[in-house]
Amino acid sequence: MYTAAQLEQFCTTIFLHLGFPEEVAKISAYNLVRADVKGIDSHGVARLSGFVRLVQAGRINPHAQIKITHETPGTATLDADAGLGLWTAHEAMNLAIEKAKLIGTAWVAVANSSHFGIAANHVELAIKNNMIGMAMTNASPLVAPAGSIEAYLGTNPICIGVPAGKYPPFIADMATAAAANGKLEIAQRKEAPIPEGWVQTKEGKPSTDPNELKNQGTLLPLGSDIDHGYHKGYALGSIVDIMSGVLSGANYGKWVPPFVSFLAPAAQLPGKGIGHFVGAWRIDAFQKAEHFTAQMEQWIEGIKSLKKAPGIEEILIPGAPEYRMEQERLVHGIPLSNKVLEDLGTLENMFGIKL
Amino acid sequence: MYTAAQLEQFCTTIFLHLGFPEEVAKISAYNLVRADVKGIDSHGVARLSGFVRLVQAGRINPHAQIKITHETPGTATLDADAGLGLWTAHEAMNLAIEKAKLIGTAWVAVANSSHFGIAANHVELAIKNNMIGMAMTNASPLVAPAGSIEAYLGTNPICIGVPAGKYPPFIADMATAAAANGKLEIAQRKEAPIPEGWVQTKEGKPSTDPNELKNQGTLLPLGSDIDHGYHKGYALGSIVDIMSGVLSGANYGKWVPPFVSFLAPAAQLPGKGIGHFVGAWRIDAFQKAEHFTAQMEQWIEGIKSLKKAPGIEEILIPGAPEYRMEQERLVHGIPLSNKVLEDLGTLENMFGIKL
Repeated sequence: MYTAAQLEQFCTTIFLHLGFPEEVAKISAYNLVRADVKGIDSHGVARLSGFVRLVQAGRINPHAQIKITHETPGTATLDADAGLGLWTAHEAMNLAIEKAKLIGTAWVAVANSSHFGIAANHVELAIKNNMIGMAMTNASPLVAPAGSIEAYLGTNPICIGVPAGKYPPFIADMATAAAANGKLEIAQRKEAPIPEGWVQTKEGKPSTDPNELKNQGTLLPLGSDIDHGYHKGYALGSIVDIMSGVLSGANYGKWVPPFVSFLAPAAQLPGKGIGHFVGAWRIDAFQKAEHFTAQMEQWIEGIKSLKKAPGIEEILIPGAPEYRMEQERLVHGIPLSNKVLEDLGTLENMFGIKL
Repeated sequence: MYTAAQLEQFCTTIFLHLGFPEEVAKISAYNLVRADVKGIDSHGVARLSGFVRLVQAGRINPHAQIKITHETPGTATLDADAGLGLWTAHEAMNLAIEKAKLIGTAWVAVANSSHFGIAANHVELAIKNNMIGMAMTNASPLVAPAGSIEAYLGTNPICIGVPAGKYPPFIADMATAAAANGKLEIAQRKEAPIPEGWVQTKEGKPSTDPNELKNQGTLLPLGSDIDHGYHKGYALGSIVDIMSGVLSGANYGKWVPPFVSFLAPAAQLPGKGIGHFVGAWRIDAFQKAEHFTAQMEQWIEGIKSLKKAPGIEEILIPGAPEYRMEQERLVHGIPLSNKVLEDLGTLENMFGIKL
């Protein structure tokens, strides 16, 4: 078991060794470890070595200077100068919040960025300011649009978060694929089949093989097939790509550069890096904040009091599982798998530091 | 076959007979018939008699005066005075567009409204102004949150539309349920079973009966079951309800009043009428409009050139089926089913007019 503080300190030190300024290192470490705190282990320190390799390969710039390339009172577009997404999206949301304080809402598109960790972290900044926040990012292609057998969209998550008074905030943070890649990785480790509807073979046939992507298979959009509305998952993933990539001036579609450093970006890229899109609506720009809070609490109580389906112990509000994991792990610590510990051990040796 | 102009004239005349001002009658008629034009027959003139009954029952106010109850430069909340949603959402989007012209983006929440027709109509106003538009509305409860067997959410559609240069606009207009109620109605008429995953019985068991809702069954959220991510559909439907209902001051959850006039709204409502949430992002508030257009065209061409799955003739961009139907029906006219013609015949007699 490790405390969040221990893991953050470790990540901060490594980012400092790589040349990141102290503030950037700290924000990035916080956002990385917060995925572990919330139980999203696939997006936490398990990815630290991947980020290190991208910096070492020159694909992430530790000295990035974010520039505003376009701006109105309610919008901005940023060129993140190949900076670390864990930090650039944080800065983008803070800019949206500052603008929203003045005029009620604001939205920031980010180009030339990299992986931003879990979307919920950035949305939480808005929630802390009593705003409804939204964050999305595009990602390298794994998902085939409805009717296709070629990957064009990433798992392209959308997150929306809403302050909820005396209850934990409502936070819906979801991949727009039927299942995120992390779920396939869990099945791979267990050598277990996955449900039909998550992936298709390279010929477009159903598959339950968690390794299907290694055989040029593709993830399916949320909905899984035509009868169950996979054109909706495809549309949602497309919207994320358009807002994060096309609108910002980042890459999009099949041109989004891969997260792993051993795969080179495509030639003749249409944009720069990967893209994000974040924004916030101030609650008191729409109505009295106290009134909203009371109604939001009643909305939640309405859900909690519904009749449960057989075998269901509790109807959960989006974000509740992660919130509960956070309460537990902040008290009892964060367990790390042997594979992650081995990975961190390699970094300990590389930088001559100890976790 | 009827022309759109014929149907619009008929609807306008009826709205005028009901006491709506001329401009409101015309806008409402346009928005109603436009659903037929686009092939969304369930939301077109088939609903005219339902609207008439709601006006006659005093649940829709033909003399509504929309009031701004809260406002910032980038936001507004409207009390629609029990007005017709076909018109109030149109006014709300026009307000968002006017504000977005000044500051880049704007968002309008609407309370005390009624059914707004198809969301895509309102989004098209933004597209015409070279903005990315979003529109959503809550609706009376039919969908059970993940893990529940009671309806709490409507089919709560989200629509996002993006101008696409030389191509028809990208318009994703989707119910957040696995299947919209209209699809069940089609199966009811054919007396055909529906796919598993659209509805559950009142005990939470799978069902393929298109009449299951009449036995207190419920619609399932997009994703259909836990393995295929129905918590995501539940989260999306919840977001629509929160933005349209909780944030605006309208009703939400199980309190959203029914569309049909023979069902009375619940007692002790937490808000007023049903709610909408609309907004727009100006494209040139983020980057040069011409650059965006070129990139959006390339994004679309990237999709169109993907390898097709077996049996698929073409990979469609969201909105393409409706766009093609529009091209066809504007030239060749709109067919109406016998049931709809009978319904319109009743209205002809009621108002002493001819279609």
